[in-house]
Amino acid sequence: MATAEELKLRIRELENELIKCKQHRSQEDLQTPVFRPKIEKMSAEVLDSNPYSRLMALKRMGIVEDYEKIRSFAVAVVGVGGVGSVTAEMLTRCGIGKLLLFDYDKVELANMNRLFFQPHQAGLSKVEAAEHTLRSINPDVIFETHNYNITTVDNFTHFMDRISNGGLQEGKSVDLVLSCVDNFEARMAINTACNELGQTWLESGVSENAVSGHIQLIIPGETACFACAPPLVVAANIDEKTLKRDGVCAASLPTTMGVIAGILVQNVLKYLLRFGTVSFYLGYNAMQDFFPTMTMKANPQCDDRHCRRQQEEYKKKEAERPKPEVVEEEEEVVHEENEWGIELVSEITAAELQDASGPKPDLPEGITVAYTIPNKDGEVNSEETVEETDQSLEELMAQMKKL
Amino acid sequence: MATAEELKLRIRELENELIKCKQHRSQEDLQTPVFRPKIEKMSAEVLDSNPYSRLMALKRMGIVEDYEKIRSFAVAVVGVGGVGSVTAEMLTRCGIGKLLLFDYDKVELANMNRLFFQPHQAGLSKVEAAEHTLRSINPDVIFETHNYNITTVDNFTHFMDRISNGGLQEGKSVDLVLSCVDNFEARMAINTACNELGQTWLESGVSENAVSGHIQLIIPGETACFACAPPLVVAANIDEKTLKRDGVCAASLPTTMGVIAGILVQNVLKYLLRFGTVSFYLGYNAMQDFFPTMTMKANPQCDDRHCRRQQEEYKKKEAERPKPEVVEEEEEVVHEENEWGIELVSEITAAELQDASGPKPDLPEGITVAYTIPNKDGEVNSEETVEETDQSLEELMAQMKKL
Repeated sequence: MATAEELKLRIRELENELIKCKQHRSQEDLQTPVFRPKIEKMSAEVLDSNPYSRLMALKRMGIVEDYEKIRSFAVAVVGVGGVGSVTAEMLTRCGIGKLLLFDYDKVELANMNRLFFQPHQAGLSKVEAAEHTLRSINPDVIFETHNYNITTVDNFTHFMDRISNGGLQEGKSVDLVLSCVDNFEARMAINTACNELGQTWLESGVSENAVSGHIQLIIPGETACFACAPPLVVAANIDEKTLKRDGVCAASLPTTMGVIAGILVQNVLKYLLRFGTVSFYLGYNAMQDFFPTMTMKANPQCDDRHCRRQQEEYKKKEAERPKPEVVEEEEEVVHEENEWGIELVSEITAAELQDASGPKPDLPEGITVAYTIPNKDGEVNSEETVEETDQSLEELMAQMKKL
Repeated sequence: MATAEELKLRIRELENELIKCKQHRSQEDLQTPVFRPKIEKMSAEVLDSNPYSRLMALKRMGIVEDYEKIRSFAVAVVGVGGVGSVTAEMLTRCGIGKLLLFDYDKVELANMNRLFFQPHQAGLSKVEAAEHTLRSINPDVIFETHNYNITTVDNFTHFMDRISNGGLQEGKSVDLVLSCVDNFEARMAINTACNELGQTWLESGVSENAVSGHIQLIIPGETACFACAPPLVVAANIDEKTLKRDGVCAASLPTTMGVIAGILVQNVLKYLLRFGTVSFYLGYNAMQDFFPTMTMKANPQCDDRHCRRQQEEYKKKEAERPKPEVVEEEEEVVHEENEWGIELVSEITAAELQDASGPKPDLPEGITVAYTIPNKDGEVNSEETVEETDQSLEELMAQMKKL
C-alpha cells in the first residue's frame, strides 16, 4: 500500500508529464495547417491578408471584366497526375467555384519528380491527397472527388452523370472538362462522353520522352473531336526509335508538366472569363522552345455518331445565326488585326488529315500524328510508328494503350 | 488534507488525460511530413519507391546523356516569390545538388493566388518556409538560405561572396544565378554582381498585368547584359495607360508564373545537362499564346565597366579558339538543320537598340522596351512611357523602381 507521500509524488510526476505532452502538442499545432476562414465575397482591397487582391487587380488592369464570375464555374479534372494536380492547384488558387477530381491512382515516391504531391502522401489515393492539400490552400472552393477508373462500364455511366449534373448547382452540367490523363483509352472515354453530352473539353498531353506536350480545345460539332482524326502531337526532334522499346518507363519533368498545366489553365481562364484568344491547339517543343498552333474542323465522316449529330446541330445553329456583315466568315481577319506578327494558324480539316494517303499529311511544322488510321482497304498510311500494313484500328488503339 | 482515495482518483484522472494527450500526439505525427531517407546514388530502377526513376528515364529516351550530373550543380535563386518559389521547387524535384535562396519578404495570404506557399505559412519568412517545404520534398538537396535584401551595401558584398564561394564545394562559384525578383533595383544588383564575377545568369519577369512574361540568358561579355540596353519585355496587346496609374496593386496569375518558371527551369536543365537549344530570350504573351524569341549581343558602349571588360575577354577567347571550319560563324546554319520551321530568331545588337532614335527600335514582333535610355544630349527617344525630355537615366531608373 502506497503512502500519501508516494501518491503525491506520482501526481506531480504525472502533472509534469502532462504539461510536457501538451507543450509538445502545441508546438506541433503550430506546424499543422491553420485553415483560413471562408471568404463570402471576393474583394479587391489591397491587404496582405486578402488572398484575392492580385486576381481582382486583373479588372483594374483592364484584362478581365468580371473576375468574380470565376466562382460561378465548375470544372472537372480527369487525371490528377503530373499535369492534372498542378491544373487543379492553379484553378483552386484562382478561386474556381467547384472542382470535380477523377483519378484511381495512388501517390508514389516515383511521382516526386513532378510538382504538387509530397513524400508524406505516398500511399494515399491521389484524389484524397489532392483534396486535402487544395482545401487547405483555398477553403472557398467546393471539391467533389471520385476515386475510380472512368473507363469501366459502371464508372463511365457515373462519370457521365457527374458531368451532366455536377455543376455548381446540382442538376446543372459542369462548365468544362479537362483531360489530364496519360492513356488513349481514358481520352477516348472522355471524348465519347463529351460528344454525347455536347460538353466542351480541353485535352492535354505530354510525350513519353518528357520534352513535348500540347493542349487542344474540343467543342463537339465545331472542332475536331478525338475520334475525328489521329491525335496530333508535337514532334520532338529526336530519334523516335528510342521511344518504341517495350517495357520502358516513360520519362517526365516538372518543367514540361508545369508549362502544359500553365497554358491549359490560362486557356481555361480565357475561355471562362472571356479575355484574350483561346487556342484550339497549342504545342510545346521543349528542345527548341517552339510553340506550334493550329485549328482543325470536325470530320463529317467521324466514327462517333454523337460527333456527327453535334456537327449537324452546329450547322443548323450557324445557319440560323444572324450575320451582321457579309464577308465576316474569313478567319484571316483576326490575324490582320493583331500587330504581334503571329504566324497564320494552319487550318486543317480532320477529313483531310484522315484521308491523307501520302507519307505525311499537310500539318503545320512541328506537329505530327501520334499514329495513322488505316485506309478502307486495310492499308495503313506510311507512318514510321506503324510497321505492319494489315493492322486494324482496334489493334492500333491497343498499341496506343500500351504506350 | 486529501484522503488516499482522493489522491488515487486524481492519479487515474491524470493517467487518462496523459493517454489521451499521447494518442492525440501520435495522430498528429501521422499527419506531419515523414521525411524520406536520403538516397546516396540516383538509380534508374523502375520502382514506385524510386523518386528518380522518371528523371533517369531521360537517359534511356535519348534526351540527356548523364542525368546524374544534376547533383554536381549549385544554383542560386534570387527572389522566392511567384516565379522563384516554383523555380526552386522544380529544381528540388529534379534533384539539383545545391540551392541557394535569397529573399527578405514574408509569406502573406495575398500570395495565395500563386503556386507553392500555403495559408498556414503566412507570417514566416519566404526563404524559411520554402526551405522547410523543399527539404521535405527532397532531402538530397543541400539548401542555403539568406533572409536579406541583396541591394543594401553589406548584403550585396555578402551576396557576391556567396555567388563566388557558395558552390557545391565551398570556395567554388555557383553554376547559375536565376533572377526571379520583381523590381528593377534588384535586377541591376544581380547584373552588377554577375558582370564583375563573369557569372552566367538567367533573368525572368512577369508583367504587372499578369498576362505576359519572359526569360533571358545573360552570359557576361557575350550576350547583352541588363545595363547594355533598355530591358525588353513582351508587349501585351492592351491599353498601356491602365498600367501607369499610381498606387495600383499589380495583378498576378499562377498560370503565367507557372509557365515562366517552367520555361526558366527547362532552359536551366538544357544549359546544365547539355541537351536541346537554350533560348537567349523567350517571351510569353498569354493573351495570344505567342512566344517571341530573339538574341541580343553585348553593347560595346555599356555603362557597366565590368561588362565592357568581360566583352574584351570574350573577344580574346573567341580569337584564340581554333576554328574547325571556315564559314561556321553564320547563325542561320542552326535553323537550316532543324525541320520544325522555327522562325529565324531576330538578332539585334544592344548598341543598335540603345542608339535607336526612331519611335521604336527594330525589335521582333511582340517584344518592346520597358523604357528608353536618353541620348547623350539628354534627349529621350520618343517612347510613350517617358513624358519629359530632360530626365536623366537615374530619374528613369527611379521611375522603374516605383513600378
